[in-house]
Amino acid sequence: MKQTEKDYNNLHLQSRKAQILTSISHLLEWDQETHMPKEGGEIRGEQLQAIAGLIHKERTGKNFANALSKLIDISSGDLVSKDLTDPQKAALKLWRRDYVKDTALPDEFVEEFALLCSQSQLVWRKAKQDNDFKSFAPFLKKVIDMNKRKADFLGYENHPYDALIDLYEPEMTTERLNVLFTGLKAPISDLVKKISNVEQVDDSFLFGQFDHSQQVSFGKLLLDGMGYTPTKGRLDFSTHPFSSSLHPNDNRITTRIHPSSLMSNILAVLHEGGHALYEMGLLEQHYGSPLGQSISLGVHESQSRWWETRIGLHKSFWRHYYPILQSHFKGQFSAISLDQFYRGINKVKPSLIRIEADEVTYPLHVILRFEIEKALIGEELDVKDLPEAWNAGMQSLIGVKPTNDSEGCMQDIHWSMGAFGYFPTYALGNIYAAHIFSAFEKDFPEWEKRVSAGDLHFIRTWLNQSIHQYGRQYTSYELLEKISGKPVSADAYIAYVNKKYADIYGI
Amino acid sequence: MKQTEKDYNNLHLQSRKAQILTSISHLLEWDQETHMPKEGGEIRGEQLQAIAGLIHKERTGKNFANALSKLIDISSGDLVSKDLTDPQKAALKLWRRDYVKDTALPDEFVEEFALLCSQSQLVWRKAKQDNDFKSFAPFLKKVIDMNKRKADFLGYENHPYDALIDLYEPEMTTERLNVLFTGLKAPISDLVKKISNVEQVDDSFLFGQFDHSQQVSFGKLLLDGMGYTPTKGRLDFSTHPFSSSLHPNDNRITTRIHPSSLMSNILAVLHEGGHALYEMGLLEQHYGSPLGQSISLGVHESQSRWWETRIGLHKSFWRHYYPILQSHFKGQFSAISLDQFYRGINKVKPSLIRIEADEVTYPLHVILRFEIEKALIGEELDVKDLPEAWNAGMQSLIGVKPTNDSEGCMQDIHWSMGAFGYFPTYALGNIYAAHIFSAFEKDFPEWEKRVSAGDLHFIRTWLNQSIHQYGRQYTSYELLEKISGKPVSADAYIAYVNKKYADIYGI
Repeated sequence: MKQTEKDYNNLHLQSRKAQILTSISHLLEWDQETHMPKEGGEIRGEQLQAIAGLIHKERTGKNFANALSKLIDISSGDLVSKDLTDPQKAALKLWRRDYVKDTALPDEFVEEFALLCSQSQLVWRKAKQDNDFKSFAPFLKKVIDMNKRKADFLGYENHPYDALIDLYEPEMTTERLNVLFTGLKAPISDLVKKISNVEQVDDSFLFGQFDHSQQVSFGKLLLDGMGYTPTKGRLDFSTHPFSSSLHPNDNRITTRIHPSSLMSNILAVLHEGGHALYEMGLLEQHYGSPLGQSISLGVHESQSRWWETRIGLHKSFWRHYYPILQSHFKGQFSAISLDQFYRGINKVKPSLIRIEADEVTYPLHVILRFEIEKALIGEELDVKDLPEAWNAGMQSLIGVKPTNDSEGCMQDIHWSMGAFGYFPTYALGNIYAAHIFSAFEKDFPEWEKRVSAGDLHFIRTWLNQSIHQYGRQYTSYELLEKISGKPVSADAYIAYVNKKYADIYGI
Repeated sequence: MKQTEKDYNNLHLQSRKAQILTSISHLLEWDQETHMPKEGGEIRGEQLQAIAGLIHKERTGKNFANALSKLIDISSGDLVSKDLTDPQKAALKLWRRDYVKDTALPDEFVEEFALLCSQSQLVWRKAKQDNDFKSFAPFLKKVIDMNKRKADFLGYENHPYDALIDLYEPEMTTERLNVLFTGLKAPISDLVKKISNVEQVDDSFLFGQFDHSQQVSFGKLLLDGMGYTPTKGRLDFSTHPFSSSLHPNDNRITTRIHPSSLMSNILAVLHEGGHALYEMGLLEQHYGSPLGQSISLGVHESQSRWWETRIGLHKSFWRHYYPILQSHFKGQFSAISLDQFYRGINKVKPSLIRIEADEVTYPLHVILRFEIEKALIGEELDVKDLPEAWNAGMQSLIGVKPTNDSEGCMQDIHWSMGAFGYFPTYALGNIYAAHIFSAFEKDFPEWEKRVSAGDLHFIRTWLNQSIHQYGRQYTSYELLEKISGKPVSADAYIAYVNKKYADIYGI
């Protein structure tokens, strides 16, 4: 074996150690939300903290740094040897990138920030309950200040917000988001207004009494259809559905069964299943290296939204699954035609709450948060003026206005947790999914026919080959351009919703 | 705060770190047996190995050694300060004891041993399946050789087996076990023979078709009755029932539901519930110190056997629970009187398999293993002669003879796992439980009346106060003498089974 190869394997081995610990941390979190006894929370906090400390040590320790510097100059980023494959070169740059970021924050800062966020979360929870923004405001102010300090530690070229976005969506910038979101805002907002002016579709049949075990078994049937491998995962229940990956061979998801709301479980299963398929599609031999990791939260979200909206809200999907659904809930849908069902599940209704938003209004919720975050971090908006800015934004973008801050600017947990720069990835998911889908449609012009016949596996295979197998070898921008031959833009997304909803609403 | 107190708190904090990691390891093991996807096993092995390494590092590292040596001289065991409470003094001696043992085995030896054991387990599994002792013998020989080396590293005064027993039952010796087991052997073996000569009781009604969900709910009802706190634990299902403690506030147990065997689940729930109550009874403030740990496997087993046999096989228990059982399994027990049921669940039947043995023959199975282990480690028995020694022992002690080695000397997994010195603790559990019970009966002469009325909580409270709250402050021998005022012996156990089974079998 050549020296470079030996060095590379050794680096991979070192890096794998942190990944193993991270996977343990994921199990602790998964258990916390699914099976942990009520009183187990305090010790769980200590367990998570202990593991987080060990992961940090492993990722920033001498062993790792030594192994890394044998192959790449940490300060300049120059490769030491040229005797490497392209994927290996990409991996080394990412290993270095992660190392630089991991070591950029002083330990005391990390601890102080963690403490502030845990306090501020508690305050937020109570403030939201009491509709009392004033009590939350000073904590939010501190969280923003620390995020600005964090950006300074991490470094940035143009906008401090760049440094924060980059943690969730590598290589994404405020400027790029400006371009993407500005292109999106007017057309989507217009579409929403048009829809608001025409007669609403009826979706009342989606609300009623739906048998628990039939809901569960239908959810499992969908997972099976998607190609979610049951021996490499499991389905549990939690208050908020989520997916958790320990390894390509252990990817667990949860759903939530609402007795009175049919689509809650169905969309959760498709969404989380989409996340899980991404992780299942990463190559085992790269586990613990950047080549065995997902690219970004935005690309991850593109996979979940792909299955939830592009497939799960498409008519061809229900051509196959609607009769099965009907037989699961005997009699309940006998008077509802496929077309009625399809229109019902695609109802667009401007609302106040992001997590309940439909496919069309959803990105607008995110754009509002992006604009506010950018302004807060860029010191163009003061915390005390946040509620007003929020309400004005909701009115102008979505056409509705909160009557209080609990359903307004305090609705989401993210800011109280210290997470600034995270929200944009939710909208990126939709934009990326649409961009990727246009390439998929070129490869499979007859895809609707196959899906109508119940075949979904070819979609999974295509996503595996086009995206999953590469790990982080490409950035999201590079990969999406590689797949489609076109630079990323919101065009495909805009065209998609315009066409689909013009059809549904006859506009 | 005085310096000694500061030093003590610091030591406790250091020690708590290893405990937190140990609790993570327990979660990984629990998940592996209950919920892990089929293909998650490989990465689980790596996770467990990583955590085991970190625990070892934490327990033998400089930080811990420095904190410890401030309070006790590690080489001599002399306390540095006299300014300590009795429990603290006991804790320091145990911390030192554990440290000495943890550092006695060289890392290479530990790794070599772990590797051998994992190989030998695989070989054993196949050998048992194929009834091929010869293929297992060379591995067993190596395991025994390494156990002898282990004993040499750990040190002992009289018999190398002492060093091995001591790992599971601190301060127990071969000589003490000789005394206890010799006292037990003849009387129990005689009792078994007497029982074999009289008419058998009928227990056919315990085998049939028992509704799954009724079995589960009856098991939960029993746990509730014992005082198992549901917010501090949970009940799952696994192939072999077990209990797993992460913390006094998170103690999980599993059971196994046999559709055709009623008592399988009931006894498992009582047994594992007994283990869990011990861990729930440890004091939270001592978590991570020896004062917050269980004494030994023998004392642990005394708690599980207490609930399984002393309570769960007692007539007064069923005076309350039998009508409830009858209503759970409507009609199935209407023709069976309480007395018939009681005799049925206490049927004694000499058999070949330890884990299926009844209350009377069980210790004999263990004594056979003890005698064989002692002889193997003491070089009085050669591996090649093991099957013959086993079969002869079964015949003379229990009166039955295996027809092959799979149901003979290869039936248990323990030896293939490298665990020598573990088996005796199973019998000690029965002996200890009986010894403790004689003290309990003195404190509550009317206990049967209360139990007949469905009151079990006073028992849990008594065990909490007499045993659980002390952690490891006393050795098993000290604690049992403290509770009963009498040195530990098998007398109470012998008297108990003689009286109980003379009554049941009319002998």
